[in-house]
Amino acid sequence: MTEVVDRPTGNAAVPTEGRAANSPAAAVSAADEQPAVDVAALGEQLLGKWAHIRRQARALAARPELHKTEGLTHTEHRKRTFGQLQYLVDNEAVHRAFPTALGGSDDHGGNVAGFEELVTADPSLQIKAGVQWGLFGSAVMHLGTEAHHSKWLPGIMSLAIPGCFAMTETGHGSDVASIATTATYDPAKQEFVVHTPFRAAWKDYIGNAAIDGLGAVVFAQLVTNGVSHGVHAFYMDLRDPLTKEFLPGIGGEDDGVKGGLNGIDNGRLHFNNVRIPRANLLNRYGNVAPDGTYSSPIASPGRRFFTMLGTLVQGRVSLDGAAVAASKMALKTAIQYATERRQFNASSSTDEEVLLDYQRHQRRLFTRLATTYAASFAHEQLLQKFDDVFSGTHDTDEDRQDLETLAAALKPLSTWHALDTLQECREACGGAGFLIENRFASLRADLDVYVTFEGDNTILLQLVAKRLLADYAKEFRNVDFGVLARYVVGQATDVAIHRTGLRQVAQFVADTGSVQKAALALRDEEGQRTLLTDRVQSMVAEVGAALKGANKLPQHQGAAIFNQHQNELIDAAQAHAELLQWEAFTDALRKISDPGTKTVMTWLRDLFGLSLVEKNLSWYLMNGRLSMQRGRTVGDYINRLLVKIRPHAVDLVDAFGYGPDHLRAAIASGAEKIRQDEAREFFRMQRASGDAPVDEKAILARKKIEAGLPRH
Amino acid sequence: MTEVVDRPTGNAAVPTEGRAANSPAAAVSAADEQPAVDVAALGEQLLGKWAHIRRQARALAARPELHKTEGLTHTEHRKRTFGQLQYLVDNEAVHRAFPTALGGSDDHGGNVAGFEELVTADPSLQIKAGVQWGLFGSAVMHLGTEAHHSKWLPGIMSLAIPGCFAMTETGHGSDVASIATTATYDPAKQEFVVHTPFRAAWKDYIGNAAIDGLGAVVFAQLVTNGVSHGVHAFYMDLRDPLTKEFLPGIGGEDDGVKGGLNGIDNGRLHFNNVRIPRANLLNRYGNVAPDGTYSSPIASPGRRFFTMLGTLVQGRVSLDGAAVAASKMALKTAIQYATERRQFNASSSTDEEVLLDYQRHQRRLFTRLATTYAASFAHEQLLQKFDDVFSGTHDTDEDRQDLETLAAALKPLSTWHALDTLQECREACGGAGFLIENRFASLRADLDVYVTFEGDNTILLQLVAKRLLADYAKEFRNVDFGVLARYVVGQATDVAIHRTGLRQVAQFVADTGSVQKAALALRDEEGQRTLLTDRVQSMVAEVGAALKGANKLPQHQGAAIFNQHQNELIDAAQAHAELLQWEAFTDALRKISDPGTKTVMTWLRDLFGLSLVEKNLSWYLMNGRLSMQRGRTVGDYINRLLVKIRPHAVDLVDAFGYGPDHLRAAIASGAEKIRQDEAREFFRMQRASGDAPVDEKAILARKKIEAGLPRH
Repeated sequence: MTEVVDRPTGNAAVPTEGRAANSPAAAVSAADEQPAVDVAALGEQLLGKWAHIRRQARALAARPELHKTEGLTHTEHRKRTFGQLQYLVDNEAVHRAFPTALGGSDDHGGNVAGFEELVTADPSLQIKAGVQWGLFGSAVMHLGTEAHHSKWLPGIMSLAIPGCFAMTETGHGSDVASIATTATYDPAKQEFVVHTPFRAAWKDYIGNAAIDGLGAVVFAQLVTNGVSHGVHAFYMDLRDPLTKEFLPGIGGEDDGVKGGLNGIDNGRLHFNNVRIPRANLLNRYGNVAPDGTYSSPIASPGRRFFTMLGTLVQGRVSLDGAAVAASKMALKTAIQYATERRQFNASSSTDEEVLLDYQRHQRRLFTRLATTYAASFAHEQLLQKFDDVFSGTHDTDEDRQDLETLAAALKPLSTWHALDTLQECREACGGAGFLIENRFASLRADLDVYVTFEGDNTILLQLVAKRLLADYAKEFRNVDFGVLARYVVGQATDVAIHRTGLRQVAQFVADTGSVQKAALALRDEEGQRTLLTDRVQSMVAEVGAALKGANKLPQHQGAAIFNQHQNELIDAAQAHAELLQWEAFTDALRKISDPGTKTVMTWLRDLFGLSLVEKNLSWYLMNGRLSMQRGRTVGDYINRLLVKIRPHAVDLVDAFGYGPDHLRAAIASGAEKIRQDEAREFFRMQRASGDAPVDEKAILARKKIEAGLPRH
Repeated sequence: MTEVVDRPTGNAAVPTEGRAANSPAAAVSAADEQPAVDVAALGEQLLGKWAHIRRQARALAARPELHKTEGLTHTEHRKRTFGQLQYLVDNEAVHRAFPTALGGSDDHGGNVAGFEELVTADPSLQIKAGVQWGLFGSAVMHLGTEAHHSKWLPGIMSLAIPGCFAMTETGHGSDVASIATTATYDPAKQEFVVHTPFRAAWKDYIGNAAIDGLGAVVFAQLVTNGVSHGVHAFYMDLRDPLTKEFLPGIGGEDDGVKGGLNGIDNGRLHFNNVRIPRANLLNRYGNVAPDGTYSSPIASPGRRFFTMLGTLVQGRVSLDGAAVAASKMALKTAIQYATERRQFNASSSTDEEVLLDYQRHQRRLFTRLATTYAASFAHEQLLQKFDDVFSGTHDTDEDRQDLETLAAALKPLSTWHALDTLQECREACGGAGFLIENRFASLRADLDVYVTFEGDNTILLQLVAKRLLADYAKEFRNVDFGVLARYVVGQATDVAIHRTGLRQVAQFVADTGSVQKAALALRDEEGQRTLLTDRVQSMVAEVGAALKGANKLPQHQGAAIFNQHQNELIDAAQAHAELLQWEAFTDALRKISDPGTKTVMTWLRDLFGLSLVEKNLSWYLMNGRLSMQRGRTVGDYINRLLVKIRPHAVDLVDAFGYGPDHLRAAIASGAEKIRQDEAREFFRMQRASGDAPVDEKAILARKKIEAGLPRH
């Protein structure tokens, strides 16, 4: 087995005097030329721009009052979570995004950073708080105007009005534009009549709907003067605050037990010609005058719809961050355990190996560690972009589109990654991983729905793909599309430069020369960048060429062609999102000043980049971007990186900064080390005493030797 | 979109007269040349050799008394499950494997077939029954002798003695040979003293240990006359049958809530010099005379250990079958729903697409459908092999080794596949998939531990890999190993024939010519077989060459070399297991007589084979087995297969034979179709009435036309 220590000597966490040149530790370090990670500095970098708020939120999330109690019924869990929301209000944890005038602090990025950390206490708490203040409250704030703010926000902020964000219907989740609930204006009474026309139009999966919701923002097709103006948001009282009974015309159902997040009372709602005042239309983007005349600052109904939905992007942003946080916790626990747990004694007759010295175990955990770092740095960029837009610092139409594309690209990858990581870590800890006391299974169950709510991951990647295609088309508006695409795909040298989504891809080719040349250096930053960027670009070009002219065909045929390339489109979007993660990781490397940290983090970034190349190796081979011979080196190089990273694994998960009150996993506590040490000491003492029973195998071997037989 | 009907006309389920040549259905069928699946015949084939027992077991599993009640606390769930065990006894469902003399029927294969089907009622029930009769009872039966059978089996069979299979310890799960509990013989009192020397030696994760277990088979290192003879099994009373308190010297703990299977009371046990009679040693494979003399029919301690463990292989066999059953249920529900659920109207201004017409949705579900069929046919082969061995029909040492290798190869693939399929199906059903009422999340949580218990999947694949290497070494004992390996790897033509595990691989090459030639026909059975077999063979040869001589190095160095290739070894084992699945599917095709069924099932087998090739495409390219150009056709061919399979998808999941009482998923009931039909009818009526509100977009478009502006 590879000989390693669990932490390199010369760790920056050790006081400087401990690393004096003449100390034994320094001598070992010098002999090994082993770099060391500055855990504190790396931790600070990971905390990012809103470090102070993350620290506050983590301190809060460490309190037992907010922790998930395992084994509760969903009824008990719901009660506990609702109580915790009040605790958050009392501790001023959830009002940062609201207007300063109402007691908030107009801090959008900081608000999301704080919310994300709640996942460490209980994902149900994160999401229930997200429903109340991130969706219900945000809809009133972003879609309503001054009068709505002063009327409802104080009660929403204080939790006097627990409320629902009633958008999704049983029949329409991904295709929100097609929801069927109607709000028809009645000029005679100056009221909207909200109505559910059939069963598929019931609001469904709505948090706070089953029990707690007194109010709701209801999304419905606004109809006035015989014209449907598309989806708008309406404020509605749902229940009598005293009796908690539904108001007349309103009914509902409980969604019951779910695969996770059972602290939230999801439910269904339906409306039978429920009348609400005209003023309850949240009218920032569309208004109805007393006589029924509709007006909007945005002429295009399509753009208006996407602008309204765009104000709610923070849900995706915060899921991205929470998914990263959960991955970090899982890896800290599994890697800690893997340095203590021993099994099988292949390389010694007395000592068993620690799990983390097994190559496969390293592959399972370190590739996911690398991806978690990439996702973490990418999330920080997303959060800053989000803050730039919502603070108004950079809030053009293009900024908003870029933000939405970035969120749509990163949220799928990070949420799928969290499920994959929680599962791999649980399996890597065997039976112990399955016990709820070690939290993997609990977190995985709760985070499961993150991959389909706030935008189904597969749908989001298609939004990204459409943006990539649109940019591609824009770039080549005046060029013969088919010929160019063949050129781009068929020839890897001198690839034409164009934009795909947020990135000016391929411009590096101009700087660095041909793709082939760059690809020769798999280990180089520019080599990796070239391979990853070229793939996105070529995939988009290829699909773009195949789809050329599809929009001029009859609708039916155009859709069929599009559908024939749906799988490739989604793959291209995923490749783009992976590139964004890789770029974020690479940008983060530039901000590291400590040389040891930079060296180790560069190995980790290389592991991430090379893992992406390995995953898609067939593409690189089939498209002539890597030779067969070079392709065969990718796996070996990854294996060598694993060995290099091994001594730093604990430092790298310690830098995540989650303590025992966040992890709360029995096997992250060092308990396994105590058990292993006790067992080894027992056998050591037994051998020393001479009382150990003799192994039958040893006797047989001796007999064979005595009889002159071969031992094997 | 691709135009399809959900079922082809001319379905074999339709009475023959309905398919007369002059009927409209036949006319359509002839025009389309659309084959039809004989659902009943295919269903019968899937039921396999023990069809009658599967039918009985399914009828039983359909009863509400045995169904999982969702939302219970683990305490309540445990009570319910324990009660259900008695129900199984009362209904004669669990004694088939026991001796006829004691009321069983000596039917080993049938017994496992029946157990597997219980997973459809509640996985906790399957596993709790498996603990009682499959592990505890089997250990007494297979490791004990006549006196043990007559003394304990009746009580075990009747559930008068609920018991534990106490093998795993906190410190040793995968490496059972290293468990630390000791049973030291005291000739003075003719008793064994069972003792737990330290915390890591506590028995852990033991079903029935926390609450219900009155007895146990305890595995411990047998020590007599100062010699340790390795792991043996001992019968032990655990609790007082009246008070349910632990007997003196015995203690324990509750493992608490788990990620799933909470109907089972897993717990920990420890022993403080607990004395049991000499006769409690289950002495079939090792005995201790009154004076302490040890004897065994198996001289080698290593072979003795593996023989004892080998008698318990049925646990792995039944997990393989249960995992396949769960995958079938998930796919039936998700595919049914996908033919009813509609979202987005890309190809029509009035009708939305059903999900199953989307290419990506087909990819997600049909590739897993193909794998499920492959795993189902492979399981039937495993079950027959198991029955051959345990019935004594074919029970040589080699048969037992083959059985163990086959179980170790198939159980990892099917259990991982079940988790993957349950998750993909849950995501494919969106928010509805997350509701417990649709069962994906519940089944997934319960099956999670199947991938690590009864042999951790990663460990099992390493057992397979070792067998492959051993066969490889045996085949080339007298050949220059290094040269040959290079020859085999470097040259694909005229590949030497050797055995890998259970299969005589590569002998087809002699029949069909060169690998290159065969590889030209991706769609051909022999082409797929060549590609899949060649990969296993070459990977094993490559690792074999790298490991050559490692066993002659010092232990430490040998282990290090082995570890450097651990990842490749596991990949090779997985490739072998996939080949076994593919071969089982291909064998099953030969047994299909109906031409339509054969055509469709061949497409499905091709989809399975080509998906494996696509997954490992980089290997085929790097090793010169497929050209770049041919590699690019694999994805397209898969896409074309999806379109062909689409009309038969419902037939293919109906053939699984699970009814509403097994599925018990709200969305498998046709409820979505009713909702969709109601919604579409509402809009149709509204359009017909002329009362529909006009869409603002339509008005804007008309205005643009009137103003002479372009519409787009």
